[in-house]
Amino acid sequence: MTARMLDGRALAGRLERSLQQEVETFAAMFGRRPRLVVVLVGDMAASASYVKSKSLAAARVGIDSDVVPVAATASTADLVALVKALASEKHGPADGILVQLPLPPHVDTVAVLDAVPPDRDVDGFHPENAGLLSQGRPRFIPCTAAGVQRMLIDAEIPTAGKHVVIVGRSDIVGKPLALLLASRPPVGCPPDGTGGCDASVTICHSRSGDLGHLTRQADILVAAVGRPGLITADMVRKGAAVIDVGINRVEGKLVGDVDYGPVSEVAGWISPVPGGVGPMTVAMLMSNTLLAAEIRRRP
Amino acid sequence: MTARMLDGRALAGRLERSLQQEVETFAAMFGRRPRLVVVLVGDMAASASYVKSKSLAAARVGIDSDVVPVAATASTADLVALVKALASEKHGPADGILVQLPLPPHVDTVAVLDAVPPDRDVDGFHPENAGLLSQGRPRFIPCTAAGVQRMLIDAEIPTAGKHVVIVGRSDIVGKPLALLLASRPPVGCPPDGTGGCDASVTICHSRSGDLGHLTRQADILVAAVGRPGLITADMVRKGAAVIDVGINRVEGKLVGDVDYGPVSEVAGWISPVPGGVGPMTVAMLMSNTLLAAEIRRRP
Repeated sequence: MTARMLDGRALAGRLERSLQQEVETFAAMFGRRPRLVVVLVGDMAASASYVKSKSLAAARVGIDSDVVPVAATASTADLVALVKALASEKHGPADGILVQLPLPPHVDTVAVLDAVPPDRDVDGFHPENAGLLSQGRPRFIPCTAAGVQRMLIDAEIPTAGKHVVIVGRSDIVGKPLALLLASRPPVGCPPDGTGGCDASVTICHSRSGDLGHLTRQADILVAAVGRPGLITADMVRKGAAVIDVGINRVEGKLVGDVDYGPVSEVAGWISPVPGGVGPMTVAMLMSNTLLAAEIRRRP
Repeated sequence: MTARMLDGRALAGRLERSLQQEVETFAAMFGRRPRLVVVLVGDMAASASYVKSKSLAAARVGIDSDVVPVAATASTADLVALVKALASEKHGPADGILVQLPLPPHVDTVAVLDAVPPDRDVDGFHPENAGLLSQGRPRFIPCTAAGVQRMLIDAEIPTAGKHVVIVGRSDIVGKPLALLLASRPPVGCPPDGTGGCDASVTICHSRSGDLGHLTRQADILVAAVGRPGLITADMVRKGAAVIDVGINRVEGKLVGDVDYGPVSEVAGWISPVPGGVGPMTVAMLMSNTLLAAEIRRRP
């Protein structure tokens, strides 16, 4: 068999068109547009490229965005002060504040991220937002986890009672996605229970014993480690949905964690890299920014 | 075979004696004892019994404790105001504030729990504390989850690379325990990596398809649902460690979620009910209360 492709780029496009209308409604009601401020530290090419994707998406949906460039030599204290200053413009422009990662090694990343107020934390990285998600009442869901859930719902890939295996235990993808998909409905999932939750979820990682034994049980397999070729065809159950969250640069080319060609002969569904989860992450960031603007308008 | 018993009562006793010494040190240094305030709403016998266990444990380790009884007719607003008043005694006695659950059905439990300041939330139920745990930097770990982890470490039951299956996805036990045991060391686990983390973790629940298929894979099986007899011998792998978190009253007797007799013939380790996880939960509450007092003394 050849797997059906989960076309994240196409879905992100549809989501963006829908968001664009919601943004216009917001702008008409409140006389301003939602605004995203991105802090970009240093001059790593990959970071600059991600930030550019976000700015372009914001422009497409009608969200105002600013990039605040900062020298790579900035200290933790500098960056904390900057984030606080951006957040203290009470009636100012920053509905959402995002610090592009990674930060230089001399910076205390956690201290900088914790300085983003939870109600503007459109990446969903603040502990309060991580906790609200864990407790089944999310405010901002980390964008990649939200994007994967949305792909499954859109493709009508059932999750209730199914076995999801997630390889990778990061705070950004693995853990929030496990919490989301194992949750009772409705946490991000449609109220009619058509997907995105109620799964049995296994979280595994570099220290897991026999990874293949676990991944072969997956109805839905998510690879989120950042190691090219980690998931080979023999690790995938026939007909499974395989979601590739990895973004690796190999010889100047973007590849995921999944050995795409052979796995697509076994899987029932597969998301490509690029054009899979990546564009969904950006679309969910736009959704979170609109939500942040709406939260600020609530009494 | 007959399983070795995980004697939670004995371990809790050892932990309490060690805590008692730490409490004496704290009292000698700061001229006061840590203090726990428990809000008890209504007159449910089970709640009164749990609260009594906590007060007795506090007395044993030298922690001051108070019970604030409230009529079952109290409103959500009444309870939020009470919790805030207890917390506003800045230099007053409440290092730890705990609201005994369940609250009457007319009360918004989440609103009441959220009113407990995160730095006095010795149950670990505030979203900020749930998020810090999720991100591998816990402040207060929910007591039952912390108690289960401690039992595994004490019995030298390895977790790294092992498969832990948790039945139950509550905010109080299932989810925090999954996050703890799947975490990178050291999150609550010994710095030498001797246990309590680095596991592959499966979380399953009432909507999971074939529960037995999952539970039979477990090196460590945790039952935290609250359904007597849920885990039968055929659902347990030979030699597995079985941790029973359930506390059910059946014909006036306390029983867990595990069919103890038959399962103990298959398992390698088993925790009884009563005398297993229950006393550990209380001991970890004492540990959290001392930690809360220490946090308040930090500059």
